[in-house]
Amino acid sequence: MAVQQVFIGGKWRDANHSETFQADNPAEKQPLADVFPVSTWQDVDEALTAADVAFREMRQMAVDRLELFLNLFAHLLEENAQALCELAHQETGLPVSPRLLDVELPRTVNQLKMAAQAAGEGSWRVPTIDTKANIRSYYAGIGPVAVFGPNNFPLAFNGASGGDFAAAIAAGNPVIVKANPAHPATTRELVKLAAQAASEIGLPPAAIQLVYHMANEDGLRMVSDPRLGSIGFTGSGIAGRKLKEAADKVGKPIYLEMSSINPVVILPGALAERGADIASEFSTSCLMAAGQFCTNPGLIILMDDEHTTQFITTVKEAFGKAPAGTLLTKGVEASLAKSLQQLIDAGADVEVSGSGESSSKGYSCPNTLLSTTGDKFLEQPEVFQTEAFGNSSLIVKAKNLDQVCQIIDSLEGNLTGTIYSDQEGGDDPAYDAVSLVLRQKVGRLINDKMPTGVAVSPAMNHGGPFPSTGHPGFTAVGIPASIHRFAMLQCFDNVKEGRLPRELHNENPTGRTWRLIDGAWTQNSIS
Amino acid sequence: MAVQQVFIGGKWRDANHSETFQADNPAEKQPLADVFPVSTWQDVDEALTAADVAFREMRQMAVDRLELFLNLFAHLLEENAQALCELAHQETGLPVSPRLLDVELPRTVNQLKMAAQAAGEGSWRVPTIDTKANIRSYYAGIGPVAVFGPNNFPLAFNGASGGDFAAAIAAGNPVIVKANPAHPATTRELVKLAAQAASEIGLPPAAIQLVYHMANEDGLRMVSDPRLGSIGFTGSGIAGRKLKEAADKVGKPIYLEMSSINPVVILPGALAERGADIASEFSTSCLMAAGQFCTNPGLIILMDDEHTTQFITTVKEAFGKAPAGTLLTKGVEASLAKSLQQLIDAGADVEVSGSGESSSKGYSCPNTLLSTTGDKFLEQPEVFQTEAFGNSSLIVKAKNLDQVCQIIDSLEGNLTGTIYSDQEGGDDPAYDAVSLVLRQKVGRLINDKMPTGVAVSPAMNHGGPFPSTGHPGFTAVGIPASIHRFAMLQCFDNVKEGRLPRELHNENPTGRTWRLIDGAWTQNSIS
Repeated sequence: MAVQQVFIGGKWRDANHSETFQADNPAEKQPLADVFPVSTWQDVDEALTAADVAFREMRQMAVDRLELFLNLFAHLLEENAQALCELAHQETGLPVSPRLLDVELPRTVNQLKMAAQAAGEGSWRVPTIDTKANIRSYYAGIGPVAVFGPNNFPLAFNGASGGDFAAAIAAGNPVIVKANPAHPATTRELVKLAAQAASEIGLPPAAIQLVYHMANEDGLRMVSDPRLGSIGFTGSGIAGRKLKEAADKVGKPIYLEMSSINPVVILPGALAERGADIASEFSTSCLMAAGQFCTNPGLIILMDDEHTTQFITTVKEAFGKAPAGTLLTKGVEASLAKSLQQLIDAGADVEVSGSGESSSKGYSCPNTLLSTTGDKFLEQPEVFQTEAFGNSSLIVKAKNLDQVCQIIDSLEGNLTGTIYSDQEGGDDPAYDAVSLVLRQKVGRLINDKMPTGVAVSPAMNHGGPFPSTGHPGFTAVGIPASIHRFAMLQCFDNVKEGRLPRELHNENPTGRTWRLIDGAWTQNSIS
Repeated sequence: MAVQQVFIGGKWRDANHSETFQADNPAEKQPLADVFPVSTWQDVDEALTAADVAFREMRQMAVDRLELFLNLFAHLLEENAQALCELAHQETGLPVSPRLLDVELPRTVNQLKMAAQAAGEGSWRVPTIDTKANIRSYYAGIGPVAVFGPNNFPLAFNGASGGDFAAAIAAGNPVIVKANPAHPATTRELVKLAAQAASEIGLPPAAIQLVYHMANEDGLRMVSDPRLGSIGFTGSGIAGRKLKEAADKVGKPIYLEMSSINPVVILPGALAERGADIASEFSTSCLMAAGQFCTNPGLIILMDDEHTTQFITTVKEAFGKAPAGTLLTKGVEASLAKSLQQLIDAGADVEVSGSGESSSKGYSCPNTLLSTTGDKFLEQPEVFQTEAFGNSSLIVKAKNLDQVCQIIDSLEGNLTGTIYSDQEGGDDPAYDAVSLVLRQKVGRLINDKMPTGVAVSPAMNHGGPFPSTGHPGFTAVGIPASIHRFAMLQCFDNVKEGRLPRELHNENPTGRTWRLIDGAWTQNSIS
């Protein structure tokens, strides 16, 4: 069978490859038909050179091209929604409905449209003008961006259509898509549509390129290559840290979204007031899509009292009744089993491991609820923070509020942290103590709802302290802020107006661009 | 003689030290009287613990404390200006007038006042509110910041009073000052004044702490310590890269300002039109303060024609006539000599090395102008980019415009890049070609003036691609942008108003804070 072609320099062509791979249908544990190449360095090298050329063109291009491209691409995704989602379903086991077609594809389309609007309007650039000194600055594209997408969102975080892709293009950068090997065919189809849109709008041929896979050492070489401007990565901590080290060494900005266990603190008043409701919210959140979300509630911290026992009993019932979902890959299945074993070896108790019915012939793991005490957790906080990515969670029963705070103090950085408290205010002093510590450990502090569900809002922070991401100042979701990751700050000192980018002219470039002029935000022109 | 005391946890106390050091008076090449300790890890460890405690307090403190502190500290600097500048002069050889008292101290005071204003107003936090989703985010302090100041600005970039200090405090972080060992007494006096202001205003005792020096391995250990939030470093590339590696490994944001040779391209029309004027500007800029500026013009790129010869002749005369200034330290003297030798060994020609009179009995180097051809430069671009920090510069004579662009393409990242062009527009096509390449290589693109002189403007970018700094998205000068370096993005999702920081309440916290509410910048409250 023919090996699938890569898309480099605007052309679909045979890959330079020594090895090949196939993705599995995880619901069947069967390899899918298409055979994909593991590119050698030659493919990557050609893609980097072509991207470098494309970036020079894109720097001189009117930004309305980017807006038009992103909107047309969004439109093509909608037109091809059914076929894309069926393909993504085959490769991921995620349901077409109510997930891929109803939620993830519309979210992806929405992100692209928001990025289009941001690219055209230009407010994301934070144009800053000091009229007296005639110093003007703004954010501009940083150069070609390599995007490594994760396994768990084949559309909304795909390297060829997701948040990193949209942000990188909106900033004016070419993108080199590194497909996630769990869904290469979905990625190929997305790149076809992106290439069609790019061609119709007249972006440079290498504005979007695709390589399916490469050897680890070539990945490290790519992220440290001078032709590359930046990297967006969503995936495992192990791969992310290696890429980070390679990029850091040459001072190249890399943005990583890695592991997160998303601590949820349920205060005693909340548990007494509505423990059954919270147990239900938690079980749903933890088991949805077999728990394969970056913001899955993986660590529940409670103060041990009579309501705690009832809460755990209720959750156990829910975990036991719910069918175990399909896991994305064989690797996820193996990694989840391994992580759970590490937690059990460390002394965690198994509250429940099993399910009423197994819905799946595919990769799966019984819904698993572990528990331990605060004392045990604090003896080995690193081990008990092992991320068990999938349909599982660890409940920690703390002795008292002090111990809750100590546990939080022992945590590494996370994307989210959640506190449930009662409606009457009885938990308020405890809330203050917990939030003071938790606030600095997480990117997003949530009250009274589970962390799964990441709204695409300008106020969203889908980021957090290391090791949940590589830098706590940036978000991967939310426009305009996510665009800044793929930009550099450019200042123009004593430059004549005709030589400035249009966003820094006296006249407002669009009539609606927000600019910081002499300390005040305005949409007005300079008179 | 008694060893000077460190300031840790709000107390001046004897250091834990095994070694001591003295600073030199560089104009006399004589050690100054005060003896300073090289702290052992115990001092650093205690400072980190105290800073961690102080940060917890500062998170709960009203931000007007920060504003009051910064303003009072600025006031105390003005009150003690003469004594501070005389001390700084002794330690650096920089003149009290027209440098320290007339320029650098007022600049320092101005920066602190701007930081005070920013801290109180809160617009720097980019409060972003999505009223429909009730998601709100802003930037908040990242944790204790260690500030390593450089040797060349004993006040304006001092770890105890400079731009990094002001930005770190404005964001609500404690600061651990690591003194530059070339001016420890100046740093001590600054910390005394800062401590006085902190005490009067009621900041926590460990909001500002001072360690003079530590072993290299303790420095690396400090920057990777979990109690530390971030690091600001200005200094040599060698030290900076080591600190960066240690911080990167644990995912800790570090902001570095390192080497930069600040390329200046003088286009043929400009040279023909006003070559003598530019030669004079260049000589003044390059020799001022013995060239010891981060933005010193260290690389001049010309197209070789008859005006080039005249330009070089004029510069040679100026370099020959001007007295050689005092270098900051013995280390600067040695490093400058070594770098010049490397350039000469690589094939650079010595146009002039010497001066009409030596004004100094102190550390110095003859004013040195080197030259080479574009061909030679392109054979070894790395070597020819060796930074020769001090009163020297390298002129590159390129064959043609293409070669100018190739030379720029071969450059690493720099803080600034400058283009001189003629007034009539004859250079405009060349300007476009050069600026397209140069723009991506530098943080600040300057036209028709020398790069020395960094205005403290909100539109300033004193930053640039690696290795001039560690990240091209941040500036070390200019408020509010420089404050973002020492902040993390914090999102509040579904949090009741009473639990939100005041900047995210419905009511505008100051009546003048700029906030991004539902996509529009406004100073209004939410009604």
